[in-house]
Amino acid sequence: MELLNRIRIVMVNTSDSGNIGAAARAMKTMGISDLVLVEPKEFPTAKATARAAGAADVLYQARVVPTLDEALADCQMVFGASARMRTIPWPLMTPREATQFVLNEPEGASIAIVFGREDAGLTNEELRRCHYHICIPGNESYGVLNVAAAVQVICYEMRMAVLAQQQAETGGAPAAKPVMPLEITDWDEPLVSAEDMERFMKHFEETLLDIGFFDPNNPKQLMTRARRLFMRTRMDRLEMNLMRGVLSTVQKRLKGE
Amino acid sequence: MELLNRIRIVMVNTSDSGNIGAAARAMKTMGISDLVLVEPKEFPTAKATARAAGAADVLYQARVVPTLDEALADCQMVFGASARMRTIPWPLMTPREATQFVLNEPEGASIAIVFGREDAGLTNEELRRCHYHICIPGNESYGVLNVAAAVQVICYEMRMAVLAQQQAETGGAPAAKPVMPLEITDWDEPLVSAEDMERFMKHFEETLLDIGFFDPNNPKQLMTRARRLFMRTRMDRLEMNLMRGVLSTVQKRLKGE
Repeated sequence: MELLNRIRIVMVNTSDSGNIGAAARAMKTMGISDLVLVEPKEFPTAKATARAAGAADVLYQARVVPTLDEALADCQMVFGASARMRTIPWPLMTPREATQFVLNEPEGASIAIVFGREDAGLTNEELRRCHYHICIPGNESYGVLNVAAAVQVICYEMRMAVLAQQQAETGGAPAAKPVMPLEITDWDEPLVSAEDMERFMKHFEETLLDIGFFDPNNPKQLMTRARRLFMRTRMDRLEMNLMRGVLSTVQKRLKGE
Repeated sequence: MELLNRIRIVMVNTSDSGNIGAAARAMKTMGISDLVLVEPKEFPTAKATARAAGAADVLYQARVVPTLDEALADCQMVFGASARMRTIPWPLMTPREATQFVLNEPEGASIAIVFGREDAGLTNEELRRCHYHICIPGNESYGVLNVAAAVQVICYEMRMAVLAQQQAETGGAPAAKPVMPLEITDWDEPLVSAEDMERFMKHFEETLLDIGFFDPNNPKQLMTRARRLFMRTRMDRLEMNLMRGVLSTVQKRLKGE
């Protein structure tokens, strides 16, 4: 169950505090307790506490932060829950597929799952901050889950995966062997945090400006594509040092140093 | 999806009509629409309609009946959702296990899934009316899901099972879909070939030489690490053009072009 302690639920800009309470309850029933709220419209409220029922402790311990950056700063893996199709496809998976990635995270890695606004979900900007997008395969004609219901389904899948793995380890039924998407188990270097990743993307963009590089056909999408590329690699610290070293060296050479 | 049309959700003696609305929404998002209410404490209400959101149609079509008998009369298979342990053990399964029973029902059979009161669940008498009990494996210290959240989880499992079966029947795809390292299906650009990848790595190495970059601690491993980083991204053609454009621009700037 140690893995469940490393999962953080992040709710962005939630309008109805009842949904925050319901999400806290959904989390606790599945053994997940780290809740971070980015700019909730109303919180705390009596309504949230009522809907949390026996999970008031999760609600009281919830942190309220002003930006998504702060919510994700110390996380190595970021999922975004998304119902909408985007213009640039992002690595997309069902909650069940996502569990395989989570099970393969190295020990100690923190995992964030980000949920958007009740009416509009996550912005494209916010979705680009995620390594992967999770989509609950819903009804084509009306597939929009309530945000707390989506938290329940995804936390349930995470718990089911952990239980299946435990069962397999303790000699129970042979569980489906976890797929190793990026062979990230037994990695030799710690993975970078979301904060480090943002600094790298900023450094990359600066360097592109310094060298005067832009994609004449699609200037706006350039950084989005670059971000998608680097996000999905899950860089480790040595790799990031290497890449930042390259960028810094390019910048120095341009100044004639 | 025909199977989903044969699943009925039965809610017994619900106190809070908000939960009825939320259950209607949970059902509709998963493609299930047959809702029967046994002696709800309050219904219909504005609260229920508000919580149903885009699933008002499910709510309007819901039947209100005075007894569980009436709700179940034409059903061939009855599941009861139960969180509590009973003195007499009953065939008990997780939602995922239950889907296997549902998939094996003969064509045309109607399946009911019964949910109890917010505070006390189903009585022993009601539970004995069920063929099987479904238990969502929750947190030992607090595993009580909100009733609408439980409806969401169980309807989600039913839909996932139907989708997996469809996929197996149509595409011949294995029921357990192999998780691709990155859901590269439906990507917007074709992935690069091994040959392109080699050219890119060579270009990257040349550029590092041009800028005079090397890792003083580990010169040999530098390219190995860079290769591991870029190999595992599975670059597409547009991403590679972008990266090679960056490298070429750096090379030009160094020559003062």
